[in-house]
Amino acid sequence: MMRFIDKLLSASRKNNSWLCIGLDPDPQLMPEVDILQFNNAIIEATSDLVCAYKPNLAFYEALGAEGLTILEKTIKHIPSDIPTIGDAKRGDIDNTAKAYAKVLFSILGFDAATVNPYLGFDSLEPFLNYKDKGVFILCRTSNKGALDFQSLLVDGIPLYEVVAKKAQEWNAYGNIGLVVGATYPEELKRVRFICPDMPLLIPGIGAQGGELASAVGYGVDSRGEMAIINVSRQILYASREKDFAQAARNVAEKMRNQINDHRRKAR
Amino acid sequence: MMRFIDKLLSASRKNNSWLCIGLDPDPQLMPEVDILQFNNAIIEATSDLVCAYKPNLAFYEALGAEGLTILEKTIKHIPSDIPTIGDAKRGDIDNTAKAYAKVLFSILGFDAATVNPYLGFDSLEPFLNYKDKGVFILCRTSNKGALDFQSLLVDGIPLYEVVAKKAQEWNAYGNIGLVVGATYPEELKRVRFICPDMPLLIPGIGAQGGELASAVGYGVDSRGEMAIINVSRQILYASREKDFAQAARNVAEKMRNQINDHRRKAR
Repeated sequence: MMRFIDKLLSASRKNNSWLCIGLDPDPQLMPEVDILQFNNAIIEATSDLVCAYKPNLAFYEALGAEGLTILEKTIKHIPSDIPTIGDAKRGDIDNTAKAYAKVLFSILGFDAATVNPYLGFDSLEPFLNYKDKGVFILCRTSNKGALDFQSLLVDGIPLYEVVAKKAQEWNAYGNIGLVVGATYPEELKRVRFICPDMPLLIPGIGAQGGELASAVGYGVDSRGEMAIINVSRQILYASREKDFAQAARNVAEKMRNQINDHRRKAR
Repeated sequence: MMRFIDKLLSASRKNNSWLCIGLDPDPQLMPEVDILQFNNAIIEATSDLVCAYKPNLAFYEALGAEGLTILEKTIKHIPSDIPTIGDAKRGDIDNTAKAYAKVLFSILGFDAATVNPYLGFDSLEPFLNYKDKGVFILCRTSNKGALDFQSLLVDGIPLYEVVAKKAQEWNAYGNIGLVVGATYPEELKRVRFICPDMPLLIPGIGAQGGELASAVGYGVDSRGEMAIINVSRQILYASREKDFAQAARNVAEKMRNQINDHRRKAR
């Protein structure tokens, strides 16, 4: 099986894109259309413009019993050369962590998943043992509450930097990435300094107020790559009319190009 | 609707029990029986011996598409006066946190849920806003990896104690509890000192090596209550034969009584 990181680089180079679309269907924001049809239309309209898709499991679980089926069919509809990131932020221990890793990687078949570091290495290990899969550890999240614990100083170093350092140390299989919100550019810069080669998954652009220029400028590695810029609502809900897929494509194309402009400036 | 804390106290006093059974069906450890039948038999055999049941969602998700149905039917089979704790350890932001809270409290109908604090207050708020529901924040987990981040000193105070202090501060609706592993008795003692009245959910007895005497002795409040002692494998898998439900009941009864012995000594 192709390693996640190779699949990511391959898709990103083929589509000349570091844009990731968050496939988070919210019935309150969507046009009047079946959810699976909505996802499929978004995928068909944008799959040549992205480096990855990132469904957040919460939105599918919130649909009740049929949510899981919609998620499975959505994943199947994504072209096989575009990596999928299961945004689940799971964190548990022992047999339970093993079960979650199995759900995300074997049952749902995601190429990568997000995980929460609070429970420590042994809670991440069952995910890391899937050597071909990507494991994105929450480092500095994009929300205001990130300040409550992630910024606390441990021996003069903020906790999120300790997480970044541990991630470097734990990266024996080279399959770790980090989640760092675009809303905290200085922190993003620090994380990129600590982890020069790691893929960074960067949410928080648009609806959450993060700025694209600094997200790309501080997020990319020395070759102008490895900064996965996630955008959800701004693309998915570009229009509530029948033209929603074309409208989504237009925004996605614009953002893909803007990201590339900032990548050029960053070098 | 009855508040979680009142439902918990009422069940615990009626059954004279602070034992919680973790309903974590693992096909590799189970007797040869249908999973829903297994859960139902365990519930029928033990519901007069517990203060709560705690299904961990990972085990149901790992069953694939039918897992959610089994979970829903299991919850419905639990007598309505026994509180249910959805062990999901979710943590996400904004609309996503709202979706997870809806899944656990409205769709699945749990009386309480476990959550991860790493993303801070605004990630917990959508859960706390369900004022009648219980919200157990991970504080000090029972695994070895708890040392990686939870023990780090922040201004001389370990991170898990900062979490406990914040939980006190955030407890405007009186619906917060904490998860503290039985495998760390000294830390449990500290958390009970910081949060004298909060319900503590205490896993880690048995399979994980935590000792019952200190879990109860350090976990209870000044009235000898509010320490929810969770046991899963030791009870569920007491026998792989046809007598599994009776065997589970025997172990549950023994543990309920041992917990009560330690509660008496603690006063």
